Amino acid sequence: MRSKTINPLVCVLLSIAASFLPLNSKVSEITEGENYAGIGRRMVEAAIKGEEGYQRLKKLCSIGPRMGGSDDMNEAIQYVKREMARMDLDRIRLRPVRVSRWERGGPAEVLLSENESGPGRRISAAALGGSVGTGEKGVRGKVVEVRSFEEMTAKAAGISGKIVFFNCPMKKGQADAEEAYREVSKFRKNGAVEASRLGAVAVAVRSLTTRCDDRPHTGIVRYREDAGKIPAVAVSCAAADELSDSLRRNPGTIMTMRLSCRRLPAAVSHNVMGEITGAEFPMAVITVAGHLDSWDLGSGAHDDGGGCMQALEVLSLIKRLGLRPKRTIRCVLFEDEENDSRGAVSYAEEAVLSGEAHLAAIESDLGVFAPRGFSVDGGGNVVERLQKWLPVLKSAGIEWVRSGRSGMPDVIYMDRALVRIGSVPDQQRYFDLHHSANDNIEAVDPGEMELGSAGLAILAYLISEEGL
Amino acid sequence: MRSKTINPLVCVLLSIAASFLPLNSKVSEITEGENYAGIGRRMVEAAIKGEEGYQRLKKLCSIGPRMGGSDDMNEAIQYVKREMARMDLDRIRLRPVRVSRWERGGPAEVLLSENESGPGRRISAAALGGSVGTGEKGVRGKVVEVRSFEEMTAKAAGISGKIVFFNCPMKKGQADAEEAYREVSKFRKNGAVEASRLGAVAVAVRSLTTRCDDRPHTGIVRYREDAGKIPAVAVSCAAADELSDSLRRNPGTIMTMRLSCRRLPAAVSHNVMGEITGAEFPMAVITVAGHLDSWDLGSGAHDDGGGCMQALEVLSLIKRLGLRPKRTIRCVLFEDEENDSRGAVSYAEEAVLSGEAHLAAIESDLGVFAPRGFSVDGGGNVVERLQKWLPVLKSAGIEWVRSGRSGMPDVIYMDRALVRIGSVPDQQRYFDLHHSANDNIEAVDPGEMELGSAGLAILAYLISEEGL
Repeated sequence: MRSKTINPLVCVLLSIAASFLPLNSKVSEITEGENYAGIGRRMVEAAIKGEEGYQRLKKLCSIGPRMGGSDDMNEAIQYVKREMARMDLDRIRLRPVRVSRWERGGPAEVLLSENESGPGRRISAAALGGSVGTGEKGVRGKVVEVRSFEEMTAKAAGISGKIVFFNCPMKKGQADAEEAYREVSKFRKNGAVEASRLGAVAVAVRSLTTRCDDRPHTGIVRYREDAGKIPAVAVSCAAADELSDSLRRNPGTIMTMRLSCRRLPAAVSHNVMGEITGAEFPMAVITVAGHLDSWDLGSGAHDDGGGCMQALEVLSLIKRLGLRPKRTIRCVLFEDEENDSRGAVSYAEEAVLSGEAHLAAIESDLGVFAPRGFSVDGGGNVVERLQKWLPVLKSAGIEWVRSGRSGMPDVIYMDRALVRIGSVPDQQRYFDLHHSANDNIEAVDPGEMELGSAGLAILAYLISEEGL
Repeated sequence: MRSKTINPLVCVLLSIAASFLPLNSKVSEITEGENYAGIGRRMVEAAIKGEEGYQRLKKLCSIGPRMGGSDDMNEAIQYVKREMARMDLDRIRLRPVRVSRWERGGPAEVLLSENESGPGRRISAAALGGSVGTGEKGVRGKVVEVRSFEEMTAKAAGISGKIVFFNCPMKKGQADAEEAYREVSKFRKNGAVEASRLGAVAVAVRSLTTRCDDRPHTGIVRYREDAGKIPAVAVSCAAADELSDSLRRNPGTIMTMRLSCRRLPAAVSHNVMGEITGAEFPMAVITVAGHLDSWDLGSGAHDDGGGCMQALEVLSLIKRLGLRPKRTIRCVLFEDEENDSRGAVSYAEEAVLSGEAHLAAIESDLGVFAPRGFSVDGGGNVVERLQKWLPVLKSAGIEWVRSGRSGMPDVIYMDRALVRIGSVPDQQRYFDLHHSANDNIEAVDPGEMELGSAGLAILAYLISEEGL
């Protein structure tokens, strides 16, 4: 670990110099046969042959789920820091981030019974992240099924004292699964607040997945100061169908919910970062990022352990190929994406203070499936400029560069950067496992993951060499 | 099942008319927002929501492996025929194909021992398809390891009476796995002939895969009349490494091989086909194809049961959406791809005799992973013409149309067609399972498969409506 103290004035001067000279340097059109194409192919080969990112992911997943601020998360941070040291990265550091904490406690107990006194049958459910607990006695009530907020509003008079069941299936049948997810995630995020305002005592939300198995998919539930906090669970897709059937047969079906989850005192955790300092323009920075925190039902292999290990592998590949990037390429692994994105916000604040010139902030957080393209959020003709590099990027299976904001939940805060870029892989399998026990190392294909590492490495390296 | 008798003269006239009028009709440039884009999205939705192709594949795989000319293959053919009837396809028919047959018999017994008298330890291996057996006594010999034909030639003097071990790993580290496969498949196909000419008594070939597990990957071995037929096995990747280690420690390592596989008398089997006869130009044909036969170690889910069920789903989707294609769209599922491609050759011969005007012959045989593009073999500016449809095809995840011959082992024989098209999906996982016990239904993602069905359906429908 090498530490540098840089005079603030030098910082500012360097930053000014960087922003005048290299950032807007002409992007030369790269064609097959030129040097970059060869470097691209070597990166692909080194990534897939080495499987180093995948091996690190395997190790990371063996630590345990990385809930924000948890002991396992801290162990994961230390593991990454050690790996960064092994790679001999520059300026390896932990950046303190104050995070809220929450623990699941025992498994959720969610029971259905035919009437108030009937014996309950258990259905597959899990507390949503951040949910209040129910106390030992639990919460009990009739169930009002709705398929939209509009339907809930229409049924407002009958909701007081009951449990609202948001049975809103994630839409099947489009190549862009992320879009289908966005359409229904509002029920998980905001359902509890909206139902609470109508007097509901709890909410049960159909899991946000198109694969109808019996595993619940968790994720954050939001509360607001002006609405009572009520318990919130995700029910598995199969359980949602069963509950819906029960309600059709017997509208008086009773749900009992016992959740031992709870908030813990806030704690200080960390973003972890390391870099290859630019040989010519050290203050010009390209960030390659993921979020290290995860949900706890699986081991966060795709979300987003894989993205993190890809970001780390970008630096490892550049080192292994003996490249000396002109600009700084930095790996930043964020805390707290699954809760309040405090890690991302903190890094964006730091970027303002640092005097650094941020060219690009790149993220991989849509699963480490085979890479397809890059979603780009930035002004001017930056999309067209990046598209000129497609002949090089295609060796990693990258087919397109488009304007958009996909796959960048953390770096979206980096408005300081000229451009924010999200890696977009195939999405057909992502929401089968997202936030559930299905998200483990067995669901990761090493070749697909490392092809993604290579795509990110090529992109970061090209920006480093050519500017933007 | 509807049968038509068409006067040969009418055939010829229709064919001439078809080739003058519609085949060369101007391809209008389709942009988002036009009608075809809407149809494309509906096809994607119907395919993914319905999962009908996937359900048929599940059923198909439950029948058993579909070795050319086998009883299970026949049952699969009958199953497809029934499904075609259920879909109310036109001109459902079986086309006789004379195929050679081969059966594996019991599992291969391949043993390594330190010397002639030593006890053997078994390694994971399987007879290559078409291999001669060894008789009960088996074949026994020292092992000569080679990494290329050149190395074998250099060692020619020491090969007589020995077993040649082709330890030629499939190259890892490129997005195009098919290319890496082609580079090493010559050792499996031609290794026995070349080794036999030098006096070898058998060959053992490292499995053609980049995933180093303990499962052998089979595939055809070729013999020639002018070279003695010697037994040939695939050894698993792990076993190949073990054998190589053994030879390093002890160059006198002895291999014993017992294979009970054998050729059976040739038999008549069938291609199975059905179509939606074109409403305006019935004699203008678009073929959508796969090969129904498979190897026997797995159930041929990806290779090529999945491609077949996609081809069938193309017709089902068109029916379900109530479309009436102008030209004939025909599903043809071939026999014998894994051996001598007799089914494909037979269909190509039929095409010459039929008087039909074949516009396109489309195939899916690179696994039913998420679709990426179409490889196109055809003259003139046909690639550019097809590229104009990318705005419609992209709803199924199709990113490109390129000149090439990927994924068309059967329709490559259709030189009668204006164009031959191979579906190219992601390939990172294909050779992990290809020709091995890993190729079963669990390895198929329904969403990925059906996105591919939709891509094929959009392509076939556009050609049907717009000509080529």
